Amino acid sequence: MITGTTRLYAIIGDPIEHVRTPMAFNAWFAERKIDAVCLPIHIGRDDLPRGWAGLRSILNLDGFIVTAPHKAESKALCDAVDGDGVHTGVVNTIRREADGRFVGTLLDGRGFVRGLRNEGHAIAGRRFYLAGAGGAGTALAYALAGSGAAALTIHNRTRAKAEALVAGVKKAFPSCDVRLGTADAAGHDVAVNATSLGLKPDDGHSFDLGSVDKQALVAEVVMKPDMTPLLIAAKDRGYRIHFGIHMLNSQLELMMQFLGLAPGQEQK
Amino acid sequence: MITGTTRLYAIIGDPIEHVRTPMAFNAWFAERKIDAVCLPIHIGRDDLPRGWAGLRSILNLDGFIVTAPHKAESKALCDAVDGDGVHTGVVNTIRREADGRFVGTLLDGRGFVRGLRNEGHAIAGRRFYLAGAGGAGTALAYALAGSGAAALTIHNRTRAKAEALVAGVKKAFPSCDVRLGTADAAGHDVAVNATSLGLKPDDGHSFDLGSVDKQALVAEVVMKPDMTPLLIAAKDRGYRIHFGIHMLNSQLELMMQFLGLAPGQEQK
Repeated sequence: MITGTTRLYAIIGDPIEHVRTPMAFNAWFAERKIDAVCLPIHIGRDDLPRGWAGLRSILNLDGFIVTAPHKAESKALCDAVDGDGVHTGVVNTIRREADGRFVGTLLDGRGFVRGLRNEGHAIAGRRFYLAGAGGAGTALAYALAGSGAAALTIHNRTRAKAEALVAGVKKAFPSCDVRLGTADAAGHDVAVNATSLGLKPDDGHSFDLGSVDKQALVAEVVMKPDMTPLLIAAKDRGYRIHFGIHMLNSQLELMMQFLGLAPGQEQK
Repeated sequence: MITGTTRLYAIIGDPIEHVRTPMAFNAWFAERKIDAVCLPIHIGRDDLPRGWAGLRSILNLDGFIVTAPHKAESKALCDAVDGDGVHTGVVNTIRREADGRFVGTLLDGRGFVRGLRNEGHAIAGRRFYLAGAGGAGTALAYALAGSGAAALTIHNRTRAKAEALVAGVKKAFPSCDVRLGTADAAGHDVAVNATSLGLKPDDGHSFDLGSVDKQALVAEVVMKPDMTPLLIAAKDRGYRIHFGIHMLNSQLELMMQFLGLAPGQEQK
C-alpha cells in the first residue's frame, strides 16, 4: 500500500521494460514490511544529467539502481564513489546520504563473490581464471582481487582490453598475482566465463574447457539459460559448476545493505 | 505488481506525507487492472523547476497531480494550459502529450461542479452565492460560471480579492451575472462556503445563514469534518446540504479522464 509516507527507490535505464529489480526489491520490502517501493524509471540515453538532477529533486527517493546505458555516466554524476566503483569506470547502485550527496558503487563483482561464498567457495588464497574483460569481466576482476584472490589470469578475445584490465587490477591490488592469459585455463582453482557467450544454445566456450584442472570449479555469469553450453559440457566432464544466477541473487542483499535497508556491510 | 512495463503517475507537493492521491489512484488502477502506479513525490518548495525538468526526463511518467505549494509555479512551467487553468493562476493536473509537451489544467472547481451534478443538483441557469475568493473560491467561481450558472455573487472578507475575482470571471464568462456580494446570501439557489471556516469545531460561518432562501442548497468545500458547523446549523434549520467530500470524490474521475485513463471528457 503506497501512501504519502512511502519511501521511493528506482532502477533507471533505457530501455526499461525488461528490468526485474522492481519485483525483487518490492518482494523484499513486502516480506519485511518496509514502507518503500521500487519503480522502473525510463531515462533516455542522452538525457541522464537532467534525469539525475530530477532524481536529486525527489526528496523521498533514497536510492536507485543503474542499468544500461547509464552506468558509466552515472559514475561521473556521483558526488562520491565507493568500492569497486572507484577502480572500474561504472557504478550500478546509488544511495542518497543524509546530507543529500549521491554516493555510488558497483556491486556486480561483489555479487559474484558473495554468490561463490554462499555456495561454499572461498575466494581468499584461490587462483582464478577469468575469460572476458568487458563490463562483467572488469567488475569480477576487481571484486575477486579485492576479496583476496591469490591469482587472477585474464583472457579476452581483444587482447588490448585484457592487458588494460590486468594493468588496472595489478595497480589497485598489488598483492594479487594478476596476469594476461590465453584460452588455456590450466593451473587455477576456479575458471569463470564472464563473456556473453552462452546466451545462445549454439554458443561456443570462451576458454578451453579441456585445459581446466579436474578439481576446479567452472563458473558462469550468463544466467539465462541456467545451464549454458559451457556448464552442460563442464558437468558432463565431471566438473563442479556454479550458475550465473547466484551473482544476481547475492547482489540483491548487497544492494539492500548499501542502501541501508539491510543490516551489515559489504564483505571485503 | 510493479514491473518494467508499469506506467508511472505521481502527486508532487511539499510536504507530501499527508497526500491521499496515491491510494485513490492505485485503487482505481487495481480495480481496472491498469498496469500503472501512482507515487508520492516530494519536491521542495524552492526546487520546482529542477523537479519538473526531472519529471520530463522520466519517460514512463505519463502525468501527475500537483498540490501545495506548487500549483501556481506549475502553471508557469506547463507547455500549455487547458480549462480552468487558463483563467485561474494555478493548475493541479498535468498530462504528458504524445509529443512530450506537459499540459496542465485545474480540476478543483470542475470536481465541485460534478459533485453537485452527481447529487442531482443542476448548475445551468441557477444562481450561486459563493463565500471565499482564495484558491478554492477562485476555482469554484470559474467552474460554476463556465458550467452555465446564471448568476454568481462573490463575497470575501478581504474585499479587494473578491473584486478582482468578480472582474476576472465577468471577463471570462460575460453571459454569467457576476457580482460583488456581502454576508447576505438571499436571492440564490445555492450558497457555498469556499473559505476554510469549518475546519475547526468552533469556527463561525462565512456568510449569514439566516439570509439564505428556504429552498436553497447549502454547500461546503471543507471536507473534514463531514458535518461542519455550517452544515450542522443548516440542517437544523431545514436546508438541504451538500458535503465537501463530493468535490474530491468527483474530481478523481475528472483527473482520470484528463490523464486519458478513463473514457469521456470533462463536461462543460
